[in-house]
Amino acid sequence: MDDAFLVVDWGTTNRRVYRIENGAVVRTERDDRGVTAITDFAGEAAAIRARFGDLPMLLAGMVGSNIGWQVAPYVPAPAGVSGLAASLLRVDDRTFIVPGVATASDVMRGEEVQLLGAVAAGLVPGDALLVQPGTHCKWATMADGRIAGFTTAMTGELFALLRAHGLLAAQLQGEVTANAAFLEGVEAGRRRDLAASLFGIRAAKMLGTRDDADAAAYASGLLIGSDVAARLAEASDAPIFILSGPELGNLYTAAITANGRAASLIDSHAAFVAGTLAIGAAIP
Amino acid sequence: MDDAFLVVDWGTTNRRVYRIENGAVVRTERDDRGVTAITDFAGEAAAIRARFGDLPMLLAGMVGSNIGWQVAPYVPAPAGVSGLAASLLRVDDRTFIVPGVATASDVMRGEEVQLLGAVAAGLVPGDALLVQPGTHCKWATMADGRIAGFTTAMTGELFALLRAHGLLAAQLQGEVTANAAFLEGVEAGRRRDLAASLFGIRAAKMLGTRDDADAAAYASGLLIGSDVAARLAEASDAPIFILSGPELGNLYTAAITANGRAASLIDSHAAFVAGTLAIGAAIP
Repeated sequence: MDDAFLVVDWGTTNRRVYRIENGAVVRTERDDRGVTAITDFAGEAAAIRARFGDLPMLLAGMVGSNIGWQVAPYVPAPAGVSGLAASLLRVDDRTFIVPGVATASDVMRGEEVQLLGAVAAGLVPGDALLVQPGTHCKWATMADGRIAGFTTAMTGELFALLRAHGLLAAQLQGEVTANAAFLEGVEAGRRRDLAASLFGIRAAKMLGTRDDADAAAYASGLLIGSDVAARLAEASDAPIFILSGPELGNLYTAAITANGRAASLIDSHAAFVAGTLAIGAAIP
Repeated sequence: MDDAFLVVDWGTTNRRVYRIENGAVVRTERDDRGVTAITDFAGEAAAIRARFGDLPMLLAGMVGSNIGWQVAPYVPAPAGVSGLAASLLRVDDRTFIVPGVATASDVMRGEEVQLLGAVAAGLVPGDALLVQPGTHCKWATMADGRIAGFTTAMTGELFALLRAHGLLAAQLQGEVTANAAFLEGVEAGRRRDLAASLFGIRAAKMLGTRDDADAAAYASGLLIGSDVAARLAEASDAPIFILSGPELGNLYTAAITANGRAASLIDSHAAFVAGTLAIGAAIP
């Protein structure tokens, strides 16, 4: 790729555009023009070039899915930078879509850039367990700098569903921080008995054993704690890194620590940019 | 209680009224006048007597909660027929509300009548594990004919939430029966890794590894299977009975069988009526 190029991290509901020059981001903007808002992708790419510069363009995320511009088929794990670069979908000779990665039972599309970038930038070693918290939390096992395998847990989505609908919604409007109630939830999550532990939030209200102001933090701890306990039960002793902003990062750090492991928080934004540089440099 | 009396199984959104004479139901009606639809409970009780007969009345369910007529405080487990009868809330000298039952961490209100009735009617032995599937599935350990302890899992509610909202909703509109996809879900549920297994339903769609027509049955199997696996992990070898209609009863029977135990389906309606007779006969 040239010394200057554009990158679009193009998700379902949002996107972020970067202009990169000599390895550094010189301009970036985020908007809500995710792939579901777009019908004319060619016109949209032209509009991006009109605003950010008439440069080569690397696209990642749902733009390469069947609800995106063109389908960039999943690359099977283990997948590294060179494998992704060799499998880019070429829309034209200066517009490339990064493929997602698949195992026999799981898929990712967009997260792979950040994971490989974390290694490429030296933010994490080549053998590590990387966590990308969120609506659909990814846990990726990196081996020799490649994505060897991964598991996705819909932890964040379950919390959002419970907070918006159903029996517990009214109780779950409080603030979530890594406080004592959160850690109590993490401890309960170790039992990996989610449907029963969730009803316990209701029972605690009826029995008066927990202040409702603590219910949201407890529920978050329960969900994140279940996720952490399940993943660590099958994890090696490779070091653990969390790619996240500080809010979710602190919650996952607390939950991992409570499960007897250490975890370091990594700048996910820097990892993403490093991933685009690494893939861009490896284009055959 | 007299040879003839009325019973109201009065839940949050529905209720069922029974007229019982000499131990048998002679008339019953179900309607949608649950406690949330009622403000004048005394007037409503008078209207029931006007229709069903001017008789003593035993009320069970949410009518005894803080959203009902009057609060009948929980009786602590272990709780049996005589304990409940001694703790009835007397609205007046011929109108009685059955209290719920609580452990240190869980509550029930309404289910206790069915559980104790199953034993009283000889449908189950005094030492047994009883399952009441539904939105909030109750698993009660009966010992010496009393409710010794119980756990509630919001299995049915989670399924309803996932079917109505969020990433998986569109995939989960298919029929649910105890078919091969359901049993595949039960098997996955044994891992007790719900948030990750649920995302696997999405991944299977993206990978083309499962027909979407099977997704609802798989998801139901996963949720019920997780619930069953968690409960059986801590259960004794007492026999298991399911108090349910045939639809959910068949699903739970299949899931329990797949986890290496046997379960018998019991007529929950008969159990409820037997419970009211037993409590009515024990009123001091």
